[in-house]
Amino acid sequence: MKKISKNPIINKNYQIPKLLDDSENIKKFLIKNKEKPVVLVQGLGFVGAVMSIVCANALNADYAVIGTDLASEGSYWKIASINDGFFPVTSSDPKVEEYYLKAREKENLYATYDNFAYQYADIVIVDINLDVQKKSLDDHGLASFDVDLSGFKSAIRDIGQNCKEKVLILIETTVPPGTTKIASEIIEREYLKRGLSFDNVSIGHSYERVMPGPNYIDSIQNFYRVYSGIDDKSADSIENFLRTIIKTDEYPLTRLGNTNATEISKVLENSYRAMNISFIVEWSRFAEEAGVNLYEIINAIRMRPTHKNIMLPGIGVGGYCLTKDPLLASWAKQNINGTGFEGLEMSEMAVSTNDKMPTYAFNFLKSFYGDGFLIGKKVQLLGVSYLSGVGDTRYTPVEIFYKELIKNQCEVYLHDPYVTYWEELGLQVDQSLDTLKNKDIDIVIFSTGHSEYTNNENLISQLSELDNLLIYDTIGVLTNREINILSKNHVVKVLGRGDI
Amino acid sequence: MKKISKNPIINKNYQIPKLLDDSENIKKFLIKNKEKPVVLVQGLGFVGAVMSIVCANALNADYAVIGTDLASEGSYWKIASINDGFFPVTSSDPKVEEYYLKAREKENLYATYDNFAYQYADIVIVDINLDVQKKSLDDHGLASFDVDLSGFKSAIRDIGQNCKEKVLILIETTVPPGTTKIASEIIEREYLKRGLSFDNVSIGHSYERVMPGPNYIDSIQNFYRVYSGIDDKSADSIENFLRTIIKTDEYPLTRLGNTNATEISKVLENSYRAMNISFIVEWSRFAEEAGVNLYEIINAIRMRPTHKNIMLPGIGVGGYCLTKDPLLASWAKQNINGTGFEGLEMSEMAVSTNDKMPTYAFNFLKSFYGDGFLIGKKVQLLGVSYLSGVGDTRYTPVEIFYKELIKNQCEVYLHDPYVTYWEELGLQVDQSLDTLKNKDIDIVIFSTGHSEYTNNENLISQLSELDNLLIYDTIGVLTNREINILSKNHVVKVLGRGDI
Repeated sequence: MKKISKNPIINKNYQIPKLLDDSENIKKFLIKNKEKPVVLVQGLGFVGAVMSIVCANALNADYAVIGTDLASEGSYWKIASINDGFFPVTSSDPKVEEYYLKAREKENLYATYDNFAYQYADIVIVDINLDVQKKSLDDHGLASFDVDLSGFKSAIRDIGQNCKEKVLILIETTVPPGTTKIASEIIEREYLKRGLSFDNVSIGHSYERVMPGPNYIDSIQNFYRVYSGIDDKSADSIENFLRTIIKTDEYPLTRLGNTNATEISKVLENSYRAMNISFIVEWSRFAEEAGVNLYEIINAIRMRPTHKNIMLPGIGVGGYCLTKDPLLASWAKQNINGTGFEGLEMSEMAVSTNDKMPTYAFNFLKSFYGDGFLIGKKVQLLGVSYLSGVGDTRYTPVEIFYKELIKNQCEVYLHDPYVTYWEELGLQVDQSLDTLKNKDIDIVIFSTGHSEYTNNENLISQLSELDNLLIYDTIGVLTNREINILSKNHVVKVLGRGDI
Repeated sequence: MKKISKNPIINKNYQIPKLLDDSENIKKFLIKNKEKPVVLVQGLGFVGAVMSIVCANALNADYAVIGTDLASEGSYWKIASINDGFFPVTSSDPKVEEYYLKAREKENLYATYDNFAYQYADIVIVDINLDVQKKSLDDHGLASFDVDLSGFKSAIRDIGQNCKEKVLILIETTVPPGTTKIASEIIEREYLKRGLSFDNVSIGHSYERVMPGPNYIDSIQNFYRVYSGIDDKSADSIENFLRTIIKTDEYPLTRLGNTNATEISKVLENSYRAMNISFIVEWSRFAEEAGVNLYEIINAIRMRPTHKNIMLPGIGVGGYCLTKDPLLASWAKQNINGTGFEGLEMSEMAVSTNDKMPTYAFNFLKSFYGDGFLIGKKVQLLGVSYLSGVGDTRYTPVEIFYKELIKNQCEVYLHDPYVTYWEELGLQVDQSLDTLKNKDIDIVIFSTGHSEYTNNENLISQLSELDNLLIYDTIGVLTNREINILSKNHVVKVLGRGDI
């Protein structure tokens, strides 16, 4: 049987080759790009794919870029699509398509599954995933979790088994602090086995701060970077490389003392944000009980520069980072940097609290209708991605909300201007708001804060024409004026607002 | 026996009058200031005293200001000192003395204990304390706490029993959300008892954001304010008054929907900060275990505008607000705004974690010397106040640290450029660093981040001349250069740094 890997964006099937040998194509690509330093990007996900085109369009260098991923059903289509003229990531940032087309034109970008490519790499950028396995999240929050480094270690071993003597290895993956040192040991061991000198191998860590939204490219090219090396020579090499792809005159680089420091910096950054979101959860309930508008309060507090980062209430936290990075940190504190150390209790609690947010938001519906009375309700979800302006549905809180609706036998309609296909659930998503009135809807949920839902006169007037809706705004997109209009013939509820 | 109340700043005793009748003086003061609207400030503490002189020097009004407090041993000296030419608050802000002297010159400031003054007030500003009673703080943190509203209610009753029919009452005290509504009910009841109309009584809440440091006056006059009233008329009156004392063109006012909203806003502001401090506690330990410099990491993270408010590690949290406001909020959520509601678990945890910080900092000393080997050590504490640049010792974390040292039979020397007398412990505090070498010291602790301790060449060279010190920087004031110099003949340890 032929193995197929499907590009879900353009609905195109690619056949995975039986004989996994891409060496001839790699050689042809390198002949076309001879004299150019070769950058190999390991992993073609949301970071790696875009990192590839940023490197292919470097500011102060001319690289030949090879992107690699696995020849699996889930990943092969990314490789095939890149070589076939279709970039594997959709984005609201027009620069993404522009950079990809420029690289196609220059012919300095190629994608492959074949480890044969590693031997030519001058620079290897590690952008593969490293996941946390969360176990049994019930109403009481996170029961336990685990981190499995084996996939990551295996990818690092590929580098150690295939790269040449002089190479720069830059780990960008968010890892449990201490991992770059472990990676360095693995690579050194493999070099020794091959009888190669490790002296000219530079290894460092510099985490990306990629935001897959309207500033996707800028979040790499025009943003601050923190970096480190396993030694000074490595740190220097990382610095030199970063200067070729980042506008460092405007966004200066920061070198930290060792790789543990940059690794901690990354997970601390995301834990800080996860913490601040979780902190506001109990205050949302307080606001509802006390009859006040928490959005109004938080906007007043944000006027103080010392309080600018205070977060607004909402349906929950999603995306690949904030939902797991505090756990990576806590796991490392217990398992890598020593024995007998305690975990990061508060940071774990932040994840657990955030994971419960969609269920809390959902419980309002249950209490509003009473037990059992949700059955058969027709529900329109406005937004399925985890963040406004972004088509990323990874770990979106809307998923939990959606599953609760289905469990309660609701009929659910999906809309999102940035998502055509909800990969994790295998669902088509509507792009048009024009059919609202044909669906005989009972409940409308604002579930993602897309700008398409804010100050949208057309949407408000469409909703006004319907009868007896429950409109539930879980992220505060509705203005007071809009709430007044909608309240004429609907019930309007906003999470975190006790004043309406 | 004559009752004495002592001004601890200038060491002057004042005799509390036996017959508590100040009516003649009040009348004389009002004759001198006739035609001026009378502002009565209730409570002459760190907020009320300074609020009095701000009102006496209002930007767009000419007020007669009467400050009131209790004729108790603890408070009478504030009243007497104000009338005697000594302002009861020391500050590094020269404007404080300047404003006080201007008011003395204009003769529009008077202080009294006599409720006789209330009947003349056009505006009453409530600046009395409202404390939390914390119970049995052990190693496991806060066991329980309670809030006693009786003192606050009694002060409000004074207003209701004495004020005239047309009056504006502005509550500035940080209160459990819901309290202004309770205060309003108390006042209305007292007016009814007296047969007075309540129609012309305006009541509102507007919390101060006073920082008793070098910008003491500006933190009132040149800063954003949030306010609310029990009705629109009250909110309008509050707004009009605030416009006379605050530069509202530069720092616009924000009106919130009701008094619960401003009350929540204040405690949320402080809980946000308490939370962010407590969040970094476990990361300090992680940094120490992983051999990294947390200060360096946090400075790198702060380059992101979305992460500017992330806090640095330290010895703990002090002062009157952050140590209790999250508890006021949690108490109110359970006791005022409904029944059966849960408390604010994370915010309570923040206070509990912060309260344990000095003990954690202290434990390093214990582990460094081993059990029992701290006995007899001579310890120099650099800084006793809770914040850099401030002479405020209320709930300073250094107090817990000091008590641990004493419990372990250390001999402790105190230094603080802003504190001559540590009121809570009844201790004199040194102002000179010149005697360091005469004391034969074993341990030097940087316990407050005063600017006098940073980049102080003289201090570093004095310390360098001593032998075999343990220098413990609990708040990151020492630079890498200074650490290198001091490490030549001392052991230097910095909290949150595992790299040295």
